[in-house]
Amino acid sequence: MPATATVPRPSRPRSWWGWGLADAHPDDAECLALGALLPGTLARPLPLPRIADLAIGRPGAEPPSSLAHLVTADPEERAAHAMGKAYRDVIRALRGRPGRIPDLVARPTGDREVADLLDWAGEHAVAVVPFGGGSSVVGGVEYRGDAHRAVLSLDLTAMDRVREVDTTGRSALIQAGALGPVLEGQLRPHGLTLRHFPQSFEFSTLGGWLATRAGGHYATGRTHIDDFVQSLRVVTPAGTGTSWRLPASGAGPSPDRLFLGSEGALGVITEAWMRLQERPRFKASASVAFGDFRRALDAVRAIAQSDLAPANCRLLDPGEALFSGASHDGSTVLVLGFESATARVDDRLETALDLARAHGGRGEAPTGGRGAGADAAVGAWRSAFLRMPYLRDGLARMGAVVDTFETAATWDRVPALIEAVRTEVGAAALKATGHRATVNCRLTHVYPDGAAPYFTVAVAGRPGDEVRIWDDIKAAATGVLHRHRATITHHHAVGRDHRPAYDRQRPEPFALALRAAKNSLDPHHILNPGVLVD
Amino acid sequence: MPATATVPRPSRPRSWWGWGLADAHPDDAECLALGALLPGTLARPLPLPRIADLAIGRPGAEPPSSLAHLVTADPEERAAHAMGKAYRDVIRALRGRPGRIPDLVARPTGDREVADLLDWAGEHAVAVVPFGGGSSVVGGVEYRGDAHRAVLSLDLTAMDRVREVDTTGRSALIQAGALGPVLEGQLRPHGLTLRHFPQSFEFSTLGGWLATRAGGHYATGRTHIDDFVQSLRVVTPAGTGTSWRLPASGAGPSPDRLFLGSEGALGVITEAWMRLQERPRFKASASVAFGDFRRALDAVRAIAQSDLAPANCRLLDPGEALFSGASHDGSTVLVLGFESATARVDDRLETALDLARAHGGRGEAPTGGRGAGADAAVGAWRSAFLRMPYLRDGLARMGAVVDTFETAATWDRVPALIEAVRTEVGAAALKATGHRATVNCRLTHVYPDGAAPYFTVAVAGRPGDEVRIWDDIKAAATGVLHRHRATITHHHAVGRDHRPAYDRQRPEPFALALRAAKNSLDPHHILNPGVLVD
Repeated sequence: MPATATVPRPSRPRSWWGWGLADAHPDDAECLALGALLPGTLARPLPLPRIADLAIGRPGAEPPSSLAHLVTADPEERAAHAMGKAYRDVIRALRGRPGRIPDLVARPTGDREVADLLDWAGEHAVAVVPFGGGSSVVGGVEYRGDAHRAVLSLDLTAMDRVREVDTTGRSALIQAGALGPVLEGQLRPHGLTLRHFPQSFEFSTLGGWLATRAGGHYATGRTHIDDFVQSLRVVTPAGTGTSWRLPASGAGPSPDRLFLGSEGALGVITEAWMRLQERPRFKASASVAFGDFRRALDAVRAIAQSDLAPANCRLLDPGEALFSGASHDGSTVLVLGFESATARVDDRLETALDLARAHGGRGEAPTGGRGAGADAAVGAWRSAFLRMPYLRDGLARMGAVVDTFETAATWDRVPALIEAVRTEVGAAALKATGHRATVNCRLTHVYPDGAAPYFTVAVAGRPGDEVRIWDDIKAAATGVLHRHRATITHHHAVGRDHRPAYDRQRPEPFALALRAAKNSLDPHHILNPGVLVD
Repeated sequence: MPATATVPRPSRPRSWWGWGLADAHPDDAECLALGALLPGTLARPLPLPRIADLAIGRPGAEPPSSLAHLVTADPEERAAHAMGKAYRDVIRALRGRPGRIPDLVARPTGDREVADLLDWAGEHAVAVVPFGGGSSVVGGVEYRGDAHRAVLSLDLTAMDRVREVDTTGRSALIQAGALGPVLEGQLRPHGLTLRHFPQSFEFSTLGGWLATRAGGHYATGRTHIDDFVQSLRVVTPAGTGTSWRLPASGAGPSPDRLFLGSEGALGVITEAWMRLQERPRFKASASVAFGDFRRALDAVRAIAQSDLAPANCRLLDPGEALFSGASHDGSTVLVLGFESATARVDDRLETALDLARAHGGRGEAPTGGRGAGADAAVGAWRSAFLRMPYLRDGLARMGAVVDTFETAATWDRVPALIEAVRTEVGAAALKATGHRATVNCRLTHVYPDGAAPYFTVAVAGRPGDEVRIWDDIKAAATGVLHRHRATITHHHAVGRDHRPAYDRQRPEPFALALRAAKNSLDPHHILNPGVLVD
């Protein structure tokens, strides 16, 4: 049926320089309190950056009159589209040295306009950087270099409608520019949900999730957005195409899988038929404390290798548990959650708790039942999870160097990998700053054959030298990942920051094929230059 | 750990012209009994074909002495590698008019030898057709045309070892030429299983499954072999590459997914790290009869959209149920099976039976428990399932035209699609033969958003005209699938038979990318020419 819901667009203004909503940033007092947690940070927070202080020049290209109504050269718009939201981006904004600011920002309202903009850009050597919510933490939406006459940020958020809903097959045709709450708000009247909740949910779009292979809500099983794709529509400089809506197919290599993770380098995903679910009616959750991190890893592996399929199965090391308030006694904490629209999940939770106890876990009483909340540790963790990027920016204003990186590896490699990251990244941070760093770890997603560790690093920086310090820390982390054959990213994408590591990780025949595909689909090399292939 | 098991290779000889084992074919008396089921078939079976009757010429190329020990021009070997095992192949063999017989058959024992053979073939314009178990039913392993100096069938079955087993992460490095029982036999001592059981299990290889995106054991959830791949090693004319062993990754488009389903056109998959499972300890199964096929479809959809995840959920229409012995009263039969290595599955079966009853199903008492067998309908269906291709060949010897085709579509399209296939394919068969055809349907795999219907067509042919009749029937089927936007194949691959339909189904930007990848990886166009791209 055609979708008729009104589109619930966000009303609170976004921060142009930092994470999320402008009015949700820590104030100066909060920044000071955060800074007090990290020895060596500044005595007072860096001032909020102002767009008026940036040197924003005249655009290097002008769109034809037929497209002019879609394009703006407004300095505020251009500044807000200059970078993503990594620590590296935030500190550059705070220091008044952002990445190259795009010449123009376009907001197309349909495929035809996207194609027309690509045609114009191809003819005029204008680089096109597709832009969804702009929450990239890997340099995915910024232009580097000078091979193009101008840079156009292609903001897709005007294409944010759920165009059609199929309640029989539980799927919907959704435009790529819909932010998480915007699409869920349109699905809710149909009793359906995409149930894809990355940390950036409020500030990222379906198209961004698809182009970066985002990891979502589910801690086990199908969590990458890839698995929920029924069909994609992609506009490329060489033409537009739509794959058939199919529940599964064995007809040649999957056409969608080539564009999933293509990060705007092969084409612009403009809409997708997505597989939906009923909202869960039954929930149960619990947390389990462990005295020993290694035994906790074994417990998580046992649960991941069962067919219990918890929706949440996140393991917090003692530092992460402390920071999020999930424990205060040096315990490792496992947060477990089950959900179903079909049947009660209490038995599954009990079986999982038995597995955890068999590996030394001390389970708290489960909470749950129909629509119930979670226990204290679960709740604490969830609030902290959504607040974390704001706190990071507060720490950045205190001159701290603080960000996250994540990976995935097979179980045989996980324990040594985590240990090596703690040791070597800690040493690199100490060397770069003279301060002891905090290096915390959690497992965000687990699989029968491996896990996705997620690391947070925080250390006091040296004023004005923060970018170099972070780059040194990240280089150490990248070295450890490579040596342990752990992927450069489980769900943050490659962007520009991970490009060298990605090139070393990618098998050479695939690199050849990808380069050939790029040359064929983007012959003028205007699409997100520098991402994935040259 | 390194795998140490001896390799349990098959000892009974394969049929060169028909399905499976040479000594398992229906004898003349059985053929006559089968023929009696189809009015208009021959009075006596066609004689068994003899290789000596084929005109097998001198090879058009000779390998260099360095590779000679890997290559044979033996007529029996060449005849056995000329075609796959579709009805179209069997009847051509029975009529003494097989497809082009390859000049040479090579059996490399490792990557280096595969690469050397590709190098030699590239230099001498020799087409290379990768060959696993040879069970293709879509013309996937036969050469058509005359653009090459000679044709080399690249038989991978000498590469059949499980090279390494990781019991911690439950995975194994398996060479691509291992047949189903050969690899399972090597995994068994480790208590692990790949649990991929296509109908061709005994006669197909891991490499074949990967190159064709085979559908397997599970009727719901992850069933395509794609989902069990951790890493692939691929030898291409442009070089060899191995993807990292990872439980998941978001680093660019999946490199493995480009080669999964590439049908030998982009490279030769020589080994893969595969995700394994524990053997199930708990099983339960039951069958449910329905008076109405449409209501049965609704029941299956309800089960597929629950999170019950049955391992078996196959719906047999009345004709299919009658033929397999699952029912004799015109009922539609749903065969349900649950299995787990973790916990009892009785509750899941009960909930599924409740859903079936809510849609008019009459459930038989479930059977099951630890290692238990299934009920009568389940057992009857399973035996018939494995015997079916042999019966098809018996009918072919009686001059019948009989084969299967399969597809997948979203639920909103499934009922009309099945009805249209019954009507239009039946009409096409009647028109081509003057006889009424049997057109049966089962659902082999079901998903929350759709299902995979599998059709069997049988009709008496006209002596000597069988191939044309089948092609007419298949053309009608293909037309229906295209009109209903149902994929040309859910798990049988594209091969040469489905190529025109695949070209119409595939989005054009992906076709451009695939052509570019082909040119880049196979610059001399020697790999399985005619498959996927030109």
